Amino acid sequence: MPAQPNPERRNERSRRAILDALYDLAVEKGYAKVTIEAVATRAGVGKPTIYRWWASKGAVALEVINDRIGTAIDFPNTGDIVADLTSQITAVTGIMTGDLGRLYRGVIGECQTDPKLAQELRATVLEPRIRFCTARLDAAVADGQLRTDLPTRTMVDVIYAPVYYRWLLSAGDAEVRGCPALVPEIIAGLLPR
Amino acid sequence: MPAQPNPERRNERSRRAILDALYDLAVEKGYAKVTIEAVATRAGVGKPTIYRWWASKGAVALEVINDRIGTAIDFPNTGDIVADLTSQITAVTGIMTGDLGRLYRGVIGECQTDPKLAQELRATVLEPRIRFCTARLDAAVADGQLRTDLPTRTMVDVIYAPVYYRWLLSAGDAEVRGCPALVPEIIAGLLPR
Repeated sequence: MPAQPNPERRNERSRRAILDALYDLAVEKGYAKVTIEAVATRAGVGKPTIYRWWASKGAVALEVINDRIGTAIDFPNTGDIVADLTSQITAVTGIMTGDLGRLYRGVIGECQTDPKLAQELRATVLEPRIRFCTARLDAAVADGQLRTDLPTRTMVDVIYAPVYYRWLLSAGDAEVRGCPALVPEIIAGLLPR
Repeated sequence: MPAQPNPERRNERSRRAILDALYDLAVEKGYAKVTIEAVATRAGVGKPTIYRWWASKGAVALEVINDRIGTAIDFPNTGDIVADLTSQITAVTGIMTGDLGRLYRGVIGECQTDPKLAQELRATVLEPRIRFCTARLDAAVADGQLRTDLPTRTMVDVIYAPVYYRWLLSAGDAEVRGCPALVPEIIAGLLPR
């Protein structure tokens, strides 16, 4: 006799369809022009299904971002902090200058006038990665590769800021892709003294 | 006999009314909710008057920002580059965490999905100030206070990035106001070697 439909699996199928629909529509039209109606239609679900799982279009987009980034920008630890940050930031700038980056910029744009979404962005996308980065920097401090008198949380801000600054202020893709080359200059201010 | 109305002066009065209307409405409702219709009504002008002088709401907002910043964040030159950058960045973070900063964030948000406005932001708000900053850094290089082997244009990115990073990624007002204290740490990587 045929198995009963598995409600969990059906949910996962709808979730996947919704995430893919939002991503595809954002690539096609630009994030600002994507509506929840269009996502629902493309995904073959009703709007209430989307709103049962997410508070807003921005919330769906944050899940798309995390889902698609996956492990692509995890922090390596080869023992050389400059090399590791350079390769990790190279991966970040690769994402920023591609289709997923355009979607991510759209969401960050929305956050500028939506404080609730901005806090969700911090909690779900930024803070987990800041914690991983801090852990990698802590290891470098313990190895004697970085100074001990500045919190590693502050070092994260100084190291990652130029990437976001050039990207969000439209300095151009070439400038964004030039950020990994700045790591040695920035680290020069963070060396043991 | 009464003088003919001066069209230049009338234009300046309308311009002032339009800029003030957009600023006041943005403070009251938030930039995202401001419409050109509402600006026109508040300023007592027709929509065509606004569109004769500006291409979009964002373009009006950029003029409001430049107009209200005025000389508040001009670059001092006391001869001490760390002191001068610290006081200039203190002025910048004061603006960012106030009403004008909220409007500016709204426009930067809009720029994330509007490349034309983003280029206008760079040309009218950012680039003129980057040139002033570069000139101040060039003077510091000539004084032997900064290294000679890194373009001062790149130094600007490294020095100003944390301010925008904390501000646009909603780290909170206290973190933004903490940026001037980072200047010595950042400059440590930019000293003569």
